[in-house]
Amino acid sequence: MSKVRAHISISLDGYVAGPNQTEENPLGEGGEALHDWLVALRSWREQSGMEGGEENVSDAVFEEELANVGAEIMGRGKFGPPGRGPWGDDPWRGWWGEDPPFHKPVFVLTHHEREPLTLSDTTFTFVTDGIESAMERALEAAGDKDVFIGGGAKTINQYLAAGLVDELELHVVPILLGGGERLFADVGPDLKLEELRAVGAPGVAHLKYRVMK
Amino acid sequence: MSKVRAHISISLDGYVAGPNQTEENPLGEGGEALHDWLVALRSWREQSGMEGGEENVSDAVFEEELANVGAEIMGRGKFGPPGRGPWGDDPWRGWWGEDPPFHKPVFVLTHHEREPLTLSDTTFTFVTDGIESAMERALEAAGDKDVFIGGGAKTINQYLAAGLVDELELHVVPILLGGGERLFADVGPDLKLEELRAVGAPGVAHLKYRVMK
Repeated sequence: MSKVRAHISISLDGYVAGPNQTEENPLGEGGEALHDWLVALRSWREQSGMEGGEENVSDAVFEEELANVGAEIMGRGKFGPPGRGPWGDDPWRGWWGEDPPFHKPVFVLTHHEREPLTLSDTTFTFVTDGIESAMERALEAAGDKDVFIGGGAKTINQYLAAGLVDELELHVVPILLGGGERLFADVGPDLKLEELRAVGAPGVAHLKYRVMK
Repeated sequence: MSKVRAHISISLDGYVAGPNQTEENPLGEGGEALHDWLVALRSWREQSGMEGGEENVSDAVFEEELANVGAEIMGRGKFGPPGRGPWGDDPWRGWWGEDPPFHKPVFVLTHHEREPLTLSDTTFTFVTDGIESAMERALEAAGDKDVFIGGGAKTINQYLAAGLVDELELHVVPILLGGGERLFADVGPDLKLEELRAVGAPGVAHLKYRVMK
């Protein structure tokens, strides 16, 4: 059966982006270090068309996360800022260039209606009628596969608060950001989780949870 | 060489106590669940004079934490609230009864001067001239052994911010508290940590870090 999964890198003090985020620097001050463990990986570099990189236990975690995903949901910030042209008339084509790395249907949460955008083998569908609607469409598009909630934090928090996530993996990075955007903001104490596994790796600990329903 | 160590149970959303803390309920609403993993352990129950309990990988973590500690530093809240008598004249004897579980010198950070209090084989020394002074005295008392910073969170945060901690272990519990007292409050982004190990266990993940100097 399809699962709804989310995973995100988080600082030891609970931030998924540093202070003073901007549209150009959505990770905020110091936030890039959240992904140091990932961009050093051979499997990540290979998937991004780059050579070299380290091999360690994080490769298996990363490959497990990529596997069996049939559709992704993301916030508008992850898709990309609107750029200079008015959104809709001269649609900015996202952060991701002409060959986005998704290779599957992507549902973008936004307040601005627009036609779907296909770039290479990724089609972005823009959803304006709420997170439940986006989930229904993503589950249908995914078929037997899983739906991945790609972020950012606000999107993950909305789905967690709505009880619509089955599995959550945190990549806990041993840095302090001292401010910024918090995972679990306004999610509240009613969400019940069960630890599935904890894996220590160079520069990161992978903590995976099942959301109890 | 002596190390300065701290460890504390923390919710997945970063709280070491829930909302609405009081002197009688310093763990706040829902905060007791932070210690469910610990009080279920055979090794904890044995150390507390109780029978039964589970055996799992957390026993080894708990025993490692207890081992080689020569002195403890704690905040006044962990020692105990002043109670009904005026502090000093009719010294309240702490939370811990006539046979406190420390069995070593304990240094209590407080603003109220008073004579040391010996209960069974634990002597509480009350330190009014700051955290550095308490550390010097604890290191001297510990000899070749380690100094343990027993909490609460404010005490740990003060020592982290001052760069006076060598090792920090977090017991990450899969609950959300939704509010309360945060570890790392005002510690800031300059503290550099290195992951030493991550251990998954029933109901908790143990993440151990070295503070880089």
